[in-house]
Amino acid sequence: MSREEFSCDVAVVGGGLSGLRTARELAAAGVSVLVVEAQRRVGGRTYTVTMRDGVAIDHGGQWVSPGQDHVVELSRTLGVELFPSWDDGLTVHWHDGRRGTAPGLFLERAEESAAALRQSAADLTRLAGELPAGRPWAAPHAEEWDAITFQDWLDARVEDPAARAGLARSLEGVFGGGPGRTSLLAALAIVRSGAHEITRLVSDRDLGPERRFVGGAQRISARMAAELPHPVLLDAPVSAVLDDGAGVLLTTRATTIRASRAVLSPAPALTARIRYEPPLPAARDHLTQRMPMGWVIKTHCVYPERFWAADGLSGKVVSDHGAVRATADNSPPSGTPGVLVAFIEGAEARRLAPASQAERRNAVLADLTRYFGPEAGSPSSYHEWSWGDDPYTRGAYGGYLTPGVWTAYGPALAAPTGRLHWTGTETSTAWNGKLEGAVRSGERAAREVLDAL
Amino acid sequence: MSREEFSCDVAVVGGGLSGLRTARELAAAGVSVLVVEAQRRVGGRTYTVTMRDGVAIDHGGQWVSPGQDHVVELSRTLGVELFPSWDDGLTVHWHDGRRGTAPGLFLERAEESAAALRQSAADLTRLAGELPAGRPWAAPHAEEWDAITFQDWLDARVEDPAARAGLARSLEGVFGGGPGRTSLLAALAIVRSGAHEITRLVSDRDLGPERRFVGGAQRISARMAAELPHPVLLDAPVSAVLDDGAGVLLTTRATTIRASRAVLSPAPALTARIRYEPPLPAARDHLTQRMPMGWVIKTHCVYPERFWAADGLSGKVVSDHGAVRATADNSPPSGTPGVLVAFIEGAEARRLAPASQAERRNAVLADLTRYFGPEAGSPSSYHEWSWGDDPYTRGAYGGYLTPGVWTAYGPALAAPTGRLHWTGTETSTAWNGKLEGAVRSGERAAREVLDAL
Repeated sequence: MSREEFSCDVAVVGGGLSGLRTARELAAAGVSVLVVEAQRRVGGRTYTVTMRDGVAIDHGGQWVSPGQDHVVELSRTLGVELFPSWDDGLTVHWHDGRRGTAPGLFLERAEESAAALRQSAADLTRLAGELPAGRPWAAPHAEEWDAITFQDWLDARVEDPAARAGLARSLEGVFGGGPGRTSLLAALAIVRSGAHEITRLVSDRDLGPERRFVGGAQRISARMAAELPHPVLLDAPVSAVLDDGAGVLLTTRATTIRASRAVLSPAPALTARIRYEPPLPAARDHLTQRMPMGWVIKTHCVYPERFWAADGLSGKVVSDHGAVRATADNSPPSGTPGVLVAFIEGAEARRLAPASQAERRNAVLADLTRYFGPEAGSPSSYHEWSWGDDPYTRGAYGGYLTPGVWTAYGPALAAPTGRLHWTGTETSTAWNGKLEGAVRSGERAAREVLDAL
Repeated sequence: MSREEFSCDVAVVGGGLSGLRTARELAAAGVSVLVVEAQRRVGGRTYTVTMRDGVAIDHGGQWVSPGQDHVVELSRTLGVELFPSWDDGLTVHWHDGRRGTAPGLFLERAEESAAALRQSAADLTRLAGELPAGRPWAAPHAEEWDAITFQDWLDARVEDPAARAGLARSLEGVFGGGPGRTSLLAALAIVRSGAHEITRLVSDRDLGPERRFVGGAQRISARMAAELPHPVLLDAPVSAVLDDGAGVLLTTRATTIRASRAVLSPAPALTARIRYEPPLPAARDHLTQRMPMGWVIKTHCVYPERFWAADGLSGKVVSDHGAVRATADNSPPSGTPGVLVAFIEGAEARRLAPASQAERRNAVLADLTRYFGPEAGSPSSYHEWSWGDDPYTRGAYGGYLTPGVWTAYGPALAAPTGRLHWTGTETSTAWNGKLEGAVRSGERAAREVLDAL
């Protein structure tokens, strides 16, 4: 079989938000760039499926928080509009086998818990302030904070159980759950990167609502891809990256790509699955062995209308039991049909992923019925995506660093390796793990490459 | 380029102890088997280099403990002889900046520390007895024990600091160091698998000395390879394993191998670097993201004679400071020349691997001089092997499970995946992490395949 060959200045591996953002910036600077994508679609961990009635379901990343300015500016430029998430109403709480409703994060003793949460959030923000930007390993107490788990710190410092649970859920949840615990340093790195609503808890301003993308978050990638001078090469997993001294050669099943430099955007665990010649430096290789992906099965149930709103509910759940412990109202801008998104995370995802779709559907509907009443048990349609089973993603929301890894291998996370540059939300010093982090990491990688060319 | 093709009953990926042991057993049963090895040599993590004077230096696994019967029987069959390790004499201790010598593990208050160690070892052995063989995740307290670190248990249960340090060093050291801590469950799994001298501490019998292989441990693999009906295919990293419904197809650079079944022997982290079609079940894939390799640089210094023996020393060091914190007398059976092996482990390996060989040599010699006096500073030769830099091993001594992983993904460690079987010392229920574990896992995989064919 004869192989196709491409030649360009820069090859970008991965057509998700970060890789495409890099490619867009390079193309704008007049650099010839080719994006190579393993799957048959762009978007990476943003993945939108449009149903027959035109309603877009986001199987992947979808929310934008106040302060996430780069992704907002990018989507504006691309003509992808934003709308406020549906979240008026009471949150359903399930705790110790009992259901209740309340306006916010807490069911009982809400004021005390909220005060404790604010205090702890302020403490964490203060500690996080000691981390040099993008270099958690260089903090004065880095070794000490990387040796203990975030849970250890919570147990020692936060007396209020509801505040403790809220903090654990919110910071460890950024990556989609264990197994194993985040170190205190890793949690502080998340706080430092701004990638969390913890900033909202200690802010005295109204920061505004979370927003979603009209038509789904994948449109940002689709439009970036469409505007590139050279079409994205799809269905082309890169198996090898060779540096021959003069440049890099990338190998896919049917194509060889020659470039001066390469940008690699998959999550660190997945970059290990490419063969490098010469082999990667040990520190970068060892990092990829120690930054596993979380596991989330994202499910959607569609109903004729937002029946929970009639009951004064927001569609949000905070629960300590069941396959589904977090939900949200994911209805389209028009409010019709009603769509609930229900997350199966961590241990529950591991338990249910090998089951049949019917079993998972039953588990989700049983939980939604427990939270929202019998109407929740009869959706007009059910949709799901198991990111742990996706062969070119192998988990969500993201890759996380287990205790000791930030201090041991942190410097290898984003630093270029010869002609290879690393991008992706896991490498971002701002809004790490989020869409915003992906966009910013793409911008950073583009600057690196432009400086180096 | 036209590709070579092979056809066989069983393809074995990896020509280390476990893969070759499987192939040997299958060949003996009349099954046609082809071993495919990524490197230009067999032996995996056993690797012997013979110096100009004929002395063999083992860069990899080398010791056999009492009770490790399968590797001993195998070497007997192959005509590879064993000899007792040199270990008469006093151990050099370095603690809190002071040097001392003592007969065993402890420098001061040796009887109290030894008693505390025996008591704790007995406690651990009792707890380990609650683990069902090969299924640590099914122990009654598995979740609880997997959520805390072994160090947490030591801190709570072992008052004597020297006994605590000795236990931490010995059990966590099985895999070559962190970062991050082993869970209590992972430590108990090691005790349960017998893979540790802890059994010696609670035994009232003399179990005999540790032994080494005359001519080096790699000879076992070399002889197994030589006795196979079909030569091992060397320098042939497997990039893809495809199950087409009728059998498996393995792809290397130049060769396609068709077989009914495949046995994969690399450590779990490395098996992730092969592309599988269909993709692996998520649990096995996620396990490979969570079982990183430790990092050891094994160094040898050769001297005209065993000068430390004249000082009444065994060549062993127990130290809390320096690049080298553990050593042993690695002289050949004749006792001439004198050879000291010095281990650079974990954080010290990470620090020194990017340095020049001269810098590492200087660091090793400075430490050996501190332990053994000025004669240690002038070896006739210096040798080293950094397993973390080895592209097809990427660490040593072995792969370890971080907290929470045994309970979350343990069942995926050794269970066959369709036509794929997993072997290697990491999969062994006996002497996990040791040469003996590799041999036994190879025997187990052969039985599995024979049952399935």
